[in-house]
Amino acid sequence: MKLWDKGYNIDKAVEEFTTGNDYLLDMKLLKYDCKASIAHARMLGKVGVLSATEVKKLVSVLEEIIGLDEKGKFQIRKEDEDCHTAIENYLTRKLGDVGKKIHTGRSRNDQVAVALRLYYKDELKKCELLCGSFIKSLKSFSKKYGSIAMPGYTHTRKAMPSSAGLWAGAFIESMEDNISLLKGAYSMIDQSPLGTGAGYGVPIKVDRQSTAKELGFAKVQENPIYVQNSRGKFEAEMAHALSMVMLDLNKMAQDLITFSMPEFGYFTIPKEFTTGSSMMPHKRNPDALELLRASYHVVSSCEFQIKGIISNLISGYNRDFQLTKEPAMKAFDTAETSLAVAGAMVNAIKVDKNACKKAMTEELFATQQAYLLVKKGVPFRDAYKKVAKKY
Amino acid sequence: MKLWDKGYNIDKAVEEFTTGNDYLLDMKLLKYDCKASIAHARMLGKVGVLSATEVKKLVSVLEEIIGLDEKGKFQIRKEDEDCHTAIENYLTRKLGDVGKKIHTGRSRNDQVAVALRLYYKDELKKCELLCGSFIKSLKSFSKKYGSIAMPGYTHTRKAMPSSAGLWAGAFIESMEDNISLLKGAYSMIDQSPLGTGAGYGVPIKVDRQSTAKELGFAKVQENPIYVQNSRGKFEAEMAHALSMVMLDLNKMAQDLITFSMPEFGYFTIPKEFTTGSSMMPHKRNPDALELLRASYHVVSSCEFQIKGIISNLISGYNRDFQLTKEPAMKAFDTAETSLAVAGAMVNAIKVDKNACKKAMTEELFATQQAYLLVKKGVPFRDAYKKVAKKY
Amino acid sequence: MKLWDKGYNIDKAVEEFTTGNDYLLDMKLLKYDCKASIAHARMLGKVGVLSATEVKKLVSVLEEIIGLDEKGKFQIRKEDEDCHTAIENYLTRKLGDVGKKIHTGRSRNDQVAVALRLYYKDELKKCELLCGSFIKSLKSFSKKYGSIAMPGYTHTRKAMPSSAGLWAGAFIESMEDNISLLKGAYSMIDQSPLGTGAGYGVPIKVDRQSTAKELGFAKVQENPIYVQNSRGKFEAEMAHALSMVMLDLNKMAQDLITFSMPEFGYFTIPKEFTTGSSMMPHKRNPDALELLRASYHVVSSCEFQIKGIISNLISGYNRDFQLTKEPAMKAFDTAETSLAVAGAMVNAIKVDKNACKKAMTEELFATQQAYLLVKKGVPFRDAYKKVAKKY
Amino acid sequence: MKLWDKGYNIDKAVEEFTTGNDYLLDMKLLKYDCKASIAHARMLGKVGVLSATEVKKLVSVLEEIIGLDEKGKFQIRKEDEDCHTAIENYLTRKLGDVGKKIHTGRSRNDQVAVALRLYYKDELKKCELLCGSFIKSLKSFSKKYGSIAMPGYTHTRKAMPSSAGLWAGAFIESMEDNISLLKGAYSMIDQSPLGTGAGYGVPIKVDRQSTAKELGFAKVQENPIYVQNSRGKFEAEMAHALSMVMLDLNKMAQDLITFSMPEFGYFTIPKEFTTGSSMMPHKRNPDALELLRASYHVVSSCEFQIKGIISNLISGYNRDFQLTKEPAMKAFDTAETSLAVAGAMVNAIKVDKNACKKAMTEELFATQQAYLLVKKGVPFRDAYKKVAKKY
Repeated sequence: MKLWDKGYNIDKAVEEFTTGNDYLLDMKLLKYDCKASIAHARMLGKVGVLSATEVKKLVSVLEEIIGLDEKGKFQIRKEDEDCHTAIENYLTRKLGDVGKKIHTGRSRNDQVAVALRLYYKDELKKCELLCGSFIKSLKSFSKKYGSIAMPGYTHTRKAMPSSAGLWAGAFIESMEDNISLLKGAYSMIDQSPLGTGAGYGVPIKVDRQSTAKELGFAKVQENPIYVQNSRGKFEAEMAHALSMVMLDLNKMAQDLITFSMPEFGYFTIPKEFTTGSSMMPHKRNPDALELLRASYHVVSSCEFQIKGIISNLISGYNRDFQLTKEPAMKAFDTAETSLAVAGAMVNAIKVDKNACKKAMTEELFATQQAYLLVKKGVPFRDAYKKVAKKY
Repeated sequence: MKLWDKGYNIDKAVEEFTTGNDYLLDMKLLKYDCKASIAHARMLGKVGVLSATEVKKLVSVLEEIIGLDEKGKFQIRKEDEDCHTAIENYLTRKLGDVGKKIHTGRSRNDQVAVALRLYYKDELKKCELLCGSFIKSLKSFSKKYGSIAMPGYTHTRKAMPSSAGLWAGAFIESMEDNISLLKGAYSMIDQSPLGTGAGYGVPIKVDRQSTAKELGFAKVQENPIYVQNSRGKFEAEMAHALSMVMLDLNKMAQDLITFSMPEFGYFTIPKEFTTGSSMMPHKRNPDALELLRASYHVVSSCEFQIKGIISNLISGYNRDFQLTKEPAMKAFDTAETSLAVAGAMVNAIKVDKNACKKAMTEELFATQQAYLLVKKGVPFRDAYKKVAKKY
Repeated sequence: MKLWDKGYNIDKAVEEFTTGNDYLLDMKLLKYDCKASIAHARMLGKVGVLSATEVKKLVSVLEEIIGLDEKGKFQIRKEDEDCHTAIENYLTRKLGDVGKKIHTGRSRNDQVAVALRLYYKDELKKCELLCGSFIKSLKSFSKKYGSIAMPGYTHTRKAMPSSAGLWAGAFIESMEDNISLLKGAYSMIDQSPLGTGAGYGVPIKVDRQSTAKELGFAKVQENPIYVQNSRGKFEAEMAHALSMVMLDLNKMAQDLITFSMPEFGYFTIPKEFTTGSSMMPHKRNPDALELLRASYHVVSSCEFQIKGIISNLISGYNRDFQLTKEPAMKAFDTAETSLAVAGAMVNAIKVDKNACKKAMTEELFATQQAYLLVKKGVPFRDAYKKVAKKY
Repeated sequence: MKLWDKGYNIDKAVEEFTTGNDYLLDMKLLKYDCKASIAHARMLGKVGVLSATEVKKLVSVLEEIIGLDEKGKFQIRKEDEDCHTAIENYLTRKLGDVGKKIHTGRSRNDQVAVALRLYYKDELKKCELLCGSFIKSLKSFSKKYGSIAMPGYTHTRKAMPSSAGLWAGAFIESMEDNISLLKGAYSMIDQSPLGTGAGYGVPIKVDRQSTAKELGFAKVQENPIYVQNSRGKFEAEMAHALSMVMLDLNKMAQDLITFSMPEFGYFTIPKEFTTGSSMMPHKRNPDALELLRASYHVVSSCEFQIKGIISNLISGYNRDFQLTKEPAMKAFDTAETSLAVAGAMVNAIKVDKNACKKAMTEELFATQQAYLLVKKGVPFRDAYKKVAKKY
């Protein structure tokens, strides 16, 4: 039974279309909705809407649901639409009238917003940790191979001497900037939407500070319309930050794909990290790197999907927002898997000292030659031209 | 066992990452791969690579798989990676050495390309039919309500008199153009990739015309490198055509959402096509229309995901292409569901004659007033200025 | 003076914002608006709204403007907003009341639509010709170098033997498909919008067939609302087709950048087609190719911009459409320049026979080895495994 | 003469293509390159590469260029390619050999990076200030009209009572979050790239701390490869932050367009802020708001363009980066103009108290009715159902 059931049936095609795959996606939100519902129930107790016994009962069944979910034993049925309905229905089945009271002082918009916010906060933290691990892998790579000289390229052409350490260091510094971006996104969304109803408040007095505090939010998101207007906006912010993380993996993948070609051989990918061809017996393909490279585009298109959906809409909740949930979740899943694989890859690859040495050909030192002339007093531009004649 | 198994194990994380959700998505491709494998086997018979008995055996087991799939009884296990592996493994389990011969003269790239091409052709036809049905719904709507006058808007402001028929007619004409786009995409992809191996042909003589003909392709895609280079390109072409279809639904949805607001009331949406709020008892929300509107962005972001993935890559197969399959499938699924829902919506909505009549206020006729002056000999620009003074 | 001047002044910032850079972009549309205005004037003569003398005067001054424009002597001033206003103002300055009559039976929306349509048709033809020239360059390249064997790559790894001819042939076949796409886009937009007013017709009888015929349109775009709804939609269609052209140039550029690296040396880029570094005297960089590669993204983001702008809007004209003109023009300019540069590049590059020969290493023939076993009766999968052991 | 001139001519088409419109765009960068060149010259003096006299001369001519530029008297000729070349050529014309020494210890990549970084920092600050002004406008609007009750909408349907103050408050709170985003982007890019050469350092000892300090950077961007890898990445970060600003303007515009329709009339737009139609004498169109709405898509497609261009590239400088400059500049220009126009709009619009009052119909109070029952002890879900029956 839907939360908004009014005693007549909805057109089947419309019902299916509006539910979409929410009942599947929402499995990730179950525990967060329960936690938020517990905070909400306690707050309702505090302000005198529920009795202490009622709160206790509600909290107990909500914790039961969390427990069931941990064991994979709580299902959201398609006809329940989403996790919020499934939870309220379960409460009502178990507790009767007490279950019917949990929705006092809130709306489903409220619930969606707060459950997502809690989920996002956890995911952002997870990504931050994964970026940290990835940096550790890079540092350990640097320790092993950092001093090996290799050609530095500009315009895909040999430019000047570089090193494996310089190469890895670029990703370390960039990833540190990414962590700042993730922290920035975290700090932006770390505000409690709970208690704003459908975007215009609720007709009873609720204690928003209290639920915000219990749920660990840094502050209350004050304006109830903004709570709805930030649907999609916050998702876009996070997806963008993740796309910046993915951009670095994209570049690293492109470097490794290119410079592990036998024609260069600077990097070696262990065979356990390659796959084969169904037809060509000799092949060892860097599929994982190619998919890492492609995954950047997956994440950035999640961002652009969100940014398209939320455009040209009036203030307040619009159902379009529902379709920002899936790309946000997909962006997290893709980024997390990618970071883990990229880390494993950096731990596994080797730098081939001999191949690198062989590649340190003399044109890489042309700039240094010009500077020898500079040291003798030749103006740089003249020194440049003199050396250029040799090439 | 993978097709490219070489007797050592792949890193678990890499294996999982490269397989992704192919084993799920490929359920849609099973029957197409079987059909293509049947054509391939018959061709191998024709050119003397397989004996008549071998062909017969292979065809029979491939038909068995098609039958199993129809009943939902053929599974692709995760460790099989994809439908192609699952099918070859099944053939080998059933037929031993004969099964091991099916891959003669082709590569998995070949198989993927041809199975996708057949699937896409069916989906494009399906979409074309759905566009046709949608046009029928619009025509039947026009028959019922077409003659009702309603305000025409420019800049979201009343402009000149319009009618329900003119409104629906715009979508009919646009949808007819969309059908041309779908046909154009169909005609572009209607070329057989089979027989090009991994992008550089196969070391034995195969009869590409024969498989192309048996599988119903209009022609052979000659250049084997182009077969691989068109991975993603063709997907982008189709996703674009679908996004043009969705654009029309997006606009229609926005019209219906706006002009079914009680403040206008031109259109009436039956309550069975609306949903409610968990908190506000009076609400009848046009969720299905809002999701139709949002679904345009889903499809166009599928196109942009594809267009991003395939960029900046060298010629020939790159594993990145694998990630163009999911957005292509998603674009089809979304467009098909949306067309069906939009059709049902057009069948269900009503035009409120009285509300429309009431809305035909006099400023809609200001241009006609200017033209009355024009008929009296006043130059248009002067007539315009004269009437403008009244507003 | 604006066409819609009503005797009071518009806020300066708003005026500047709404005009934007239209007065610059519209220089490209001047002649097309004049041509359409001539057809419109003649039609007004035919239906008796203008006298023969009036038509003659208008046509003569409009032809004068075309002449001035050819010599670069007709300016659109910022305060004129756009070419349509500049033209009507010029007519009125020259012809007095007769000039004030040219706008009878049409609206500026009409004018914009028809002038753009004519411009787009010319540009599409131009692009088609450029694709044709590019194919010619590829064919002539093939004639010179086609028979040179070179490695074929999959997953950026040597796969099987290929050739310079096979490589170029992939682009020829793809470009031929692109020409079909351009023709498809042309055929879609080749319908006359003139005579539909602001989207709801005009209050006098006009002869749309006659103007359509005079202007060379294949047919009349019947529904006036669709004329407006197709703003942006047609631009998106064209930008998409151009992005498919650019995708091929993107891939070709990436191939040439990669395989002209001295580490491969398959292709040679003459020094006149490279640029240097300000600091490193030895550099010869393939800047033009890198910019070709990047230009694909410029064009596809033009498409994306258009597709975003036109979303979530109600039927009929919305000013947002104005901002689809610049990206459409930019897509054409970028594609045309890119095709010309790519053609010059293909004419200039060479294939280094020796470098290619040296690169034909034995793993490229591993598949052929497997097939030697197949010919001896070994099932393909067993032959594959046997050969695989060597790698 | 190009900085990398080597005594032979470049193919004309290639030269034109690679220069593109850099010589125009770079007018914005002139003063920043001069400032950075001054800092660089002083540092070269400090480390003993230049004599005190040489530094003095260079600084003096660089300041001369800044002065000329302020008066619009310094031109970058097309054959100079960009501002960096124009400046070095000017220095050499004026100072002979001393001018030829300015490039010691740096590369053009260096110059581009540092000039852009300084330009971006100024633009970000400008945007932050404009956001602040916009907030002020909203607050002043709130002061005037904040207490007026108006309907709150969800799903484009009347939901619950809202107010003009609540509406404006949502944008204030959101804009404050945007300022945090801009500050975050600022803090990310506030690191000096100067002294990293072409991405692999320079062959002489330079004092990066000193130039960073003189130019007002918060820190030095250590890794030289990361300096190049962050080209486009930083641009994407800024364009994203700007797109979030634009999203709010997009939503506000859509609100104002919709609710200033005479059918609602909640907001009144003064006629000085509307434009007219060329054909329909009565029209007062909200063009500026429609263009504000569309401008969001302009900015987000700038971001998308950047994110596409920089993908799938190996580490180090690639010429593709050049094409990230234009969209970054466009994103700033669009956002700044839009913020100014949006502020002027908020200062100008009025809230129509009577229209709002009339619109406060009883269904807006349905939720309150349910809560009256809740206060009497009816469980919320039962109260909801009871009230729902009336609708």
